[in-house]
Amino acid sequence: MFKDKDIMQLLQDVACAKVTVNEAYNKLRRAPFEDLGYARIDLHRGIRQGMSEVIYGKGKTTAQIEGIVRGMAENGCRNVLITRLDPDKAAVLTARGIELDYHKDALIGIASPAPIRKIGNVLVASAGTSDQYVAEEAALTAEVTGSRVTRLYDVGVAGIHRLLARIDLITSARCIIAVAGMEGALPSVIGGLADCPVIAVPTSVGYGASFGGVAALLGMLNSCAAGVSVVNIDNGFGAGYLASKINQMDGIYEE
Amino acid sequence: MFKDKDIMQLLQDVACAKVTVNEAYNKLRRAPFEDLGYARIDLHRGIRQGMSEVIYGKGKTTAQIEGIVRGMAENGCRNVLITRLDPDKAAVLTARGIELDYHKDALIGIASPAPIRKIGNVLVASAGTSDQYVAEEAALTAEVTGSRVTRLYDVGVAGIHRLLARIDLITSARCIIAVAGMEGALPSVIGGLADCPVIAVPTSVGYGASFGGVAALLGMLNSCAAGVSVVNIDNGFGAGYLASKINQMDGIYEE
Amino acid sequence: MFKDKDIMQLLQDVACAKVTVNEAYNKLRRAPFEDLGYARIDLHRGIRQGMSEVIYGKGKTTAQIEGIVRGMAENGCRNVLITRLDPDKAAVLTARGIELDYHKDALIGIASPAPIRKIGNVLVASAGTSDQYVAEEAALTAEVTGSRVTRLYDVGVAGIHRLLARIDLITSARCIIAVAGMEGALPSVIGGLADCPVIAVPTSVGYGASFGGVAALLGMLNSCAAGVSVVNIDNGFGAGYLASKINQMDGIYEE
Amino acid sequence: MFKDKDIMQLLQDVACAKVTVNEAYNKLRRAPFEDLGYARIDLHRGIRQGMSEVIYGKGKTTAQIEGIVRGMAENGCRNVLITRLDPDKAAVLTARGIELDYHKDALIGIASPAPIRKIGNVLVASAGTSDQYVAEEAALTAEVTGSRVTRLYDVGVAGIHRLLARIDLITSARCIIAVAGMEGALPSVIGGLADCPVIAVPTSVGYGASFGGVAALLGMLNSCAAGVSVVNIDNGFGAGYLASKINQMDGIYEE
Amino acid sequence: MFKDKDIMQLLQDVACAKVTVNEAYNKLRRAPFEDLGYARIDLHRGIRQGMSEVIYGKGKTTAQIEGIVRGMAENGCRNVLITRLDPDKAAVLTARGIELDYHKDALIGIASPAPIRKIGNVLVASAGTSDQYVAEEAALTAEVTGSRVTRLYDVGVAGIHRLLARIDLITSARCIIAVAGMEGALPSVIGGLADCPVIAVPTSVGYGASFGGVAALLGMLNSCAAGVSVVNIDNGFGAGYLASKINQMDGIYEE
Amino acid sequence: MFKDKDIMQLLQDVACAKVTVNEAYNKLRRAPFEDLGYARIDLHRGIRQGMSEVIYGKGKTTAQIEGIVRGMAENGCRNVLITRLDPDKAAVLTARGIELDYHKDALIGIASPAPIRKIGNVLVASAGTSDQYVAEEAALTAEVTGSRVTRLYDVGVAGIHRLLARIDLITSARCIIAVAGMEGALPSVIGGLADCPVIAVPTSVGYGASFGGVAALLGMLNSCAAGVSVVNIDNGFGAGYLASKINQMDGIYEE
Amino acid sequence: MFKDKDIMQLLQDVACAKVTVNEAYNKLRRAPFEDLGYARIDLHRGIRQGMSEVIYGKGKTTAQIEGIVRGMAENGCRNVLITRLDPDKAAVLTARGIELDYHKDALIGIASPAPIRKIGNVLVASAGTSDQYVAEEAALTAEVTGSRVTRLYDVGVAGIHRLLARIDLITSARCIIAVAGMEGALPSVIGGLADCPVIAVPTSVGYGASFGGVAALLGMLNSCAAGVSVVNIDNGFGAGYLASKINQMDGIYEE
Amino acid sequence: MFKDKDIMQLLQDVACAKVTVNEAYNKLRRAPFEDLGYARIDLHRGIRQGMSEVIYGKGKTTAQIEGIVRGMAENGCRNVLITRLDPDKAAVLTARGIELDYHKDALIGIASPAPIRKIGNVLVASAGTSDQYVAEEAALTAEVTGSRVTRLYDVGVAGIHRLLARIDLITSARCIIAVAGMEGALPSVIGGLADCPVIAVPTSVGYGASFGGVAALLGMLNSCAAGVSVVNIDNGFGAGYLASKINQMDGIYEE
Repeated sequence: MFKDKDIMQLLQDVACAKVTVNEAYNKLRRAPFEDLGYARIDLHRGIRQGMSEVIYGKGKTTAQIEGIVRGMAENGCRNVLITRLDPDKAAVLTARGIELDYHKDALIGIASPAPIRKIGNVLVASAGTSDQYVAEEAALTAEVTGSRVTRLYDVGVAGIHRLLARIDLITSARCIIAVAGMEGALPSVIGGLADCPVIAVPTSVGYGASFGGVAALLGMLNSCAAGVSVVNIDNGFGAGYLASKINQMDGIYEE
Repeated sequence: MFKDKDIMQLLQDVACAKVTVNEAYNKLRRAPFEDLGYARIDLHRGIRQGMSEVIYGKGKTTAQIEGIVRGMAENGCRNVLITRLDPDKAAVLTARGIELDYHKDALIGIASPAPIRKIGNVLVASAGTSDQYVAEEAALTAEVTGSRVTRLYDVGVAGIHRLLARIDLITSARCIIAVAGMEGALPSVIGGLADCPVIAVPTSVGYGASFGGVAALLGMLNSCAAGVSVVNIDNGFGAGYLASKINQMDGIYEE
Repeated sequence: MFKDKDIMQLLQDVACAKVTVNEAYNKLRRAPFEDLGYARIDLHRGIRQGMSEVIYGKGKTTAQIEGIVRGMAENGCRNVLITRLDPDKAAVLTARGIELDYHKDALIGIASPAPIRKIGNVLVASAGTSDQYVAEEAALTAEVTGSRVTRLYDVGVAGIHRLLARIDLITSARCIIAVAGMEGALPSVIGGLADCPVIAVPTSVGYGASFGGVAALLGMLNSCAAGVSVVNIDNGFGAGYLASKINQMDGIYEE
Repeated sequence: MFKDKDIMQLLQDVACAKVTVNEAYNKLRRAPFEDLGYARIDLHRGIRQGMSEVIYGKGKTTAQIEGIVRGMAENGCRNVLITRLDPDKAAVLTARGIELDYHKDALIGIASPAPIRKIGNVLVASAGTSDQYVAEEAALTAEVTGSRVTRLYDVGVAGIHRLLARIDLITSARCIIAVAGMEGALPSVIGGLADCPVIAVPTSVGYGASFGGVAALLGMLNSCAAGVSVVNIDNGFGAGYLASKINQMDGIYEE
Repeated sequence: MFKDKDIMQLLQDVACAKVTVNEAYNKLRRAPFEDLGYARIDLHRGIRQGMSEVIYGKGKTTAQIEGIVRGMAENGCRNVLITRLDPDKAAVLTARGIELDYHKDALIGIASPAPIRKIGNVLVASAGTSDQYVAEEAALTAEVTGSRVTRLYDVGVAGIHRLLARIDLITSARCIIAVAGMEGALPSVIGGLADCPVIAVPTSVGYGASFGGVAALLGMLNSCAAGVSVVNIDNGFGAGYLASKINQMDGIYEE
Repeated sequence: MFKDKDIMQLLQDVACAKVTVNEAYNKLRRAPFEDLGYARIDLHRGIRQGMSEVIYGKGKTTAQIEGIVRGMAENGCRNVLITRLDPDKAAVLTARGIELDYHKDALIGIASPAPIRKIGNVLVASAGTSDQYVAEEAALTAEVTGSRVTRLYDVGVAGIHRLLARIDLITSARCIIAVAGMEGALPSVIGGLADCPVIAVPTSVGYGASFGGVAALLGMLNSCAAGVSVVNIDNGFGAGYLASKINQMDGIYEE
Repeated sequence: MFKDKDIMQLLQDVACAKVTVNEAYNKLRRAPFEDLGYARIDLHRGIRQGMSEVIYGKGKTTAQIEGIVRGMAENGCRNVLITRLDPDKAAVLTARGIELDYHKDALIGIASPAPIRKIGNVLVASAGTSDQYVAEEAALTAEVTGSRVTRLYDVGVAGIHRLLARIDLITSARCIIAVAGMEGALPSVIGGLADCPVIAVPTSVGYGASFGGVAALLGMLNSCAAGVSVVNIDNGFGAGYLASKINQMDGIYEE
Repeated sequence: MFKDKDIMQLLQDVACAKVTVNEAYNKLRRAPFEDLGYARIDLHRGIRQGMSEVIYGKGKTTAQIEGIVRGMAENGCRNVLITRLDPDKAAVLTARGIELDYHKDALIGIASPAPIRKIGNVLVASAGTSDQYVAEEAALTAEVTGSRVTRLYDVGVAGIHRLLARIDLITSARCIIAVAGMEGALPSVIGGLADCPVIAVPTSVGYGASFGGVAALLGMLNSCAAGVSVVNIDNGFGAGYLASKINQMDGIYEE
């Protein structure tokens, strides 16, 4: 990666003739847009330092995934997140010698696993057992990106006492991911109880007039509770990534 | 109205020559479909004995409304419900001498008011202050059709404690009407707490992706709580009428 | 379960030093939300005493279903309703020794069957032969929850005489479930003839502009007949459960 | 008009040198498309002989309408139909000396009225009083285009007895127009009773989930009754015009 | 059938004591609805005399179809139309000895085929080769119900010359069925050229923003040409049945 | 407020007879749900300490608003945010002596204004000049709730250079609000450049197929950039409130 | 602009100490994005040399428009296009001394008019008289941007002969704009006849199931004719601008 | 084909008696609409001289495709484009001796391949790797129809630097095809950078609220950038064909 200090260094090297003008020119020419990268490498090639890389597994062959993972491993990438990875592909990858920590109920594989230091407090709450796949995708993403995660599953609003019984988890989280299909009311109730940002994830769980998650999506967008925002249907990864970002924010140091 | 016993009587009158065959024929000829009426007169001309009559005020001129009300009054109808009646029309009707009990915040007028014996226990709960117009339409309809009504307003799920603070009202009702716009989650939560039938009424309150009540409607149709059914957007009258019917059900007497 | 009288008892025990303050404190602290539970166990773990339990079979493995059923049986649960249970799974369950009363045309299994005392009178009417699966789900649910059920199938409005020929069933029911796909007009016609609550169930039957049940759903929501409410597309269980609740209502005893 | 015999004549003229090759060439080249014109004058300038002309009044100024009407009158057109003509414009037209037969409840004006010979039997049935505007547009259009029309209004399916009381009208019609808003079930019921073609007209009457006539439209498209077809929402003119065409069909004379 | 004169007779019988009051009462009470039955047998059990019977094959087992067909055959039904019958089922039916005239490209089987006298002139036009399945369903239905049919396929508006080349077919038809997917413009163009009723059939052919026929459906409902009405997406049967009805209309005989 | 230590105290009071068992019972019985209240006062009556209060001005009369504001002022509330307050109402409020800081281009009034300490760094970016109303609602909300705000308006993606020219603002923000109508692409581009959470706000700006903000909403939900979440159409307040919450997060102090 | 050779020069300057490392660093850091600016000024401040400027008049006050126009005039801009400018605003602008060429039926004003050299051949065809407003917006935009325009209005497909009568215009155009509401079939027919690019513009003209232009939009997107592309509903400006661009393309000069 | 000069010749033959009037009549009678064909053969049988022919492979059997290809080959057609041709069919065609240049990642086969002279400069840009199938369909179509094509893949707006890095390709193209799924923002950004016509192609890539390409489609229709038009979802062929047409336009030669 080509950071600001690298440019400065390069210029100094030119100034003191350590590097020729031609060499510097060739380095710089490729730099301008790569350097945008200092802020952020694009999603599919890796997120940012301290965080793992991400591969969207769906629609990729095992050969393609294997190639990317091996390339990353050679560059020292650990804890590479592979989302929407079905069990068959996971088995093939393992058989081919890829070190893979596979989570069947989230369809997520973590390649080249390594210990992760997890900090803060992200709560992942889900309404029903069938929302669990998306909830787990969110939870694992948050963990792999360095956040400590608490799971609170099967706390749909039709049995509000189960949610209220763990109000301590809600009030102590730094960021909450609320996952729900059907009527998608969970984020509204949680948003009314919590004081931290709430990320709502509609799931495609349901039948009839749930329209593949649209009912839940609309319900969440119309939440009367402030502090709630929404990601795409079934987008557990997006929610987990964002929650991790919020959870790990630094405090403001002003005088 | 032409009831079964009237047919029997008519036939007996023919048999004993009190009525000629021709007279009987003419009476019977008009009867077959009028007699369907024994089961039920159609909605806009009156509901059934013991209940008041209903006029849908929107799109009718004051002259039309006055005509219907006076006709009903002559037939002895009291407590005639006029829904969606705006204040201007109500003022005109009153000025023309129609005895009118007008409820501004429900846009409902009750013409030829008379004391009503109210029984049972219908709870009308609404999520926000802006849902109140629909909630009041439901409540007044239930009252005019003979039900005792308890109101529990402004108990949206984003402030769940206000709802839970009155859980006694929820558990003691014979039928609950839950009115909500925006995400429409109130019926789900109430449905999870109540043991009686819950009628959900979506309202067109909201903006943006509430789509004039569609978000609330979908949320309610997808409610995870059993015992919940839904009426049309803003249909307070329909909910009130149905709740009254359920509330006033007789017990089963079987041996 | 922690009921009001338990709290009173606990306080008295504190007052007379039978229980220490600390012990009482710990008991009370966990109580508030557990106690909500007295009102209602959540749907998927069982409805309420006197009624059977329900398992949503779709998306569960036979192993999972078997586990739940065996657990319930140990707790003495009989007539456990398993909805959306396909024939293959039913066969496996039976082979594993689960006592199962399977209804192929409703995709419903009743585990640990036992005689049920059925009271009252719920009419289940359906428009076409293809709506029968949903109608049967509703009918069996109503029966298992203790209601006597009459079936009136294949009485769509395009052949209105077949419906009218059985008007006696319509006028004598305590609650009617009207199931229809396509244009979904059946509940409107029945609602105009019946004097009892009507629960409309749209089905996903149809093609082209039926949009998987949306046409029927909209038709039902817009019913001109009062006394009609609607549940989700194909939600036979919800309709049967609600109808049973309405059917079994007690009368009002007031002085 | 350029018919086959004209081509033959032209060729003969060429053969006998009455017409030069160039002249013939130019005539032939323009012929194919100009000649289409004979088949049918376009709708807004006149339908066909024996039928009246039509002006879509909405969005046209009184000056524009006056101009068209006067032009038509000069060409001998009588009974010119002006649809969606509001009362104010009608008053202005009359004040300017246009002979106008105005129907307020259909927003239709018939300019240069003359006696019309009406034949056959078109039944126009409507579900509710608020559908009457569209029903009248259909009825007047059918009449002005030469059909005898019977009106049967306010026979919605929620009061099925009123419709059945006039089953004689349904079985004796040559073509039926069924107009309904809300759930739009009327054409299905009529389609099941009638033996003649039924044209369904959804209206934008309703509120909430009627979505400006979409619910009625979908209901009609999904009608289970055969022999039913549908026109656009509120398109009374289209239905009346088509019904008149069907009503006035000649019999088949084959040997 | 219970006609007016029957009522008169019954009353006279009562008057002269030929019939008891009780017997008369029971006859009268059941009369109104039973008598409807005479008017029309319902669609799936047979349309009307002179026309064939119809079975909707989709979702029925071969055993069910065989049963219905054999029952009909015993009652003398010929030319029984079985729609949406896939080739495998057709082969099974034939193997079981059902006499079946199977049309693979319309998924239609005609059981117990017999010569049909076809009259009049129905034109079936389709836009593209992929619309042909629906067009053939319409054409065969019209033929089996006694109409002479002309086919004009692959005349979509993007190649308008092919349609115009056969304008003679358009102007000589008694009724036209216009079948189109994608943008569904064919009925509009034909409606502008034809003088007879045009029935538009949208098909689900297309991809992307055709939304399974919705684009074509909307286009047809919005047709600027008068004389056009629409049936459900892919509803070739409905169009063929209606076209046959219109085609076979008698002339009006008035003095 | 009823906290844990209150329960402990109450029990001790019972133990030492300071409080009777009955008194304690009554206090405890109401406690569970009242106590939820400690966590969070509901939105419309005030957000939380340190932040201002909020009134949704639309649909409230000036008298209602005046009443609420005066009540709050008496309780010492300052910087009360009144959203969707049109200029006429603002003028009336001012005329009645309400101290009001009115922002015409955001339709926001700040009653009882007082100096606010603003910290951190929230960037509000908007795509077009017509999105500015929503952007200002977001910006003012963030400011009133204590966040320092930078505005970057008119940087739509069709002129990407204007956005890129201020990439420094994007990379230095702690939280970004991206407001856009039409195609709603701004949050995607910003999400790809920023390292902090991005809140996307679709606006109802546009015409034709923008469908009142739906196009922008869908675009934002489908953003390929991670770290982006979405609020309701035109919900500037929600975005501003959430951004402020994120911006003001404390750092994690763990050992 | 910051081109490659500038980078080389800068590096050489650093190497020979003409420029300090810090200066070079600052130049390089800002370079990538600033330099984009040269490529293209954004649309609303001016399109490109040789073409006129554009102001979207809707939602802007006359004062705002006046300010922009005067500013442009000072910079020598002529033929400034103001779209969606209602007559009242146009009158005010003229009264204030703005030189304005106003086109009432396109709601377009051309400020600071000057002779325009028009080349090539753009055909603007529209289906109905009510589509004319959008068609004129397209035509005037094309003219102001330097294209010669031919208008062919009122040639809807329901009267196909009128379109075919001017097939010469279709075959001789360099680019065609086809404007239509309702079923939107015009572009398909024209696309089948023309050999040049066709730009389809759906209009919001219509009622009922036209859904404000959606029916036309879908029809156009599904056009079976190749060479057709679509712009937003009512977007006459966009179509005119693009047509002008295509019309004025240079030929390819390759050896 | 029957061209103008043929008509002239025929007339001359009649004039000089080489052809009888009857023979000429018969020839002419069939001519008028066939001659429309001079302007343009319809799409599926071939586009126009100098360009290749096109077969829509989906839904056609290999036998059908083989038949068409062989027929074309006999007529000397080369470079026949077969779109949506899956690998299995391609293999069968090759096995049967069809000379086929198959492109697996575009599902396109080019039968009877021959060298093509490619001119001009069409840029095909795509947002993500999963959009590549559609992009390749567009690119190959443009190439086969004679255009030189540059590919710029995987330049989605969430990584804007990758797009900007190749701004030279954008500014030097004669026509650009921008392919994107998900939020579909790519054409807006490119439209703001490019000076040539941009054709936007939405793809069905995505999940959740992408609704099979609808989100991308709406985003593109609402593009704020001028010079952008849209084709149907996944319609790579349409875009490639149109782009080729625009790319190959001649310059205007006027004096």
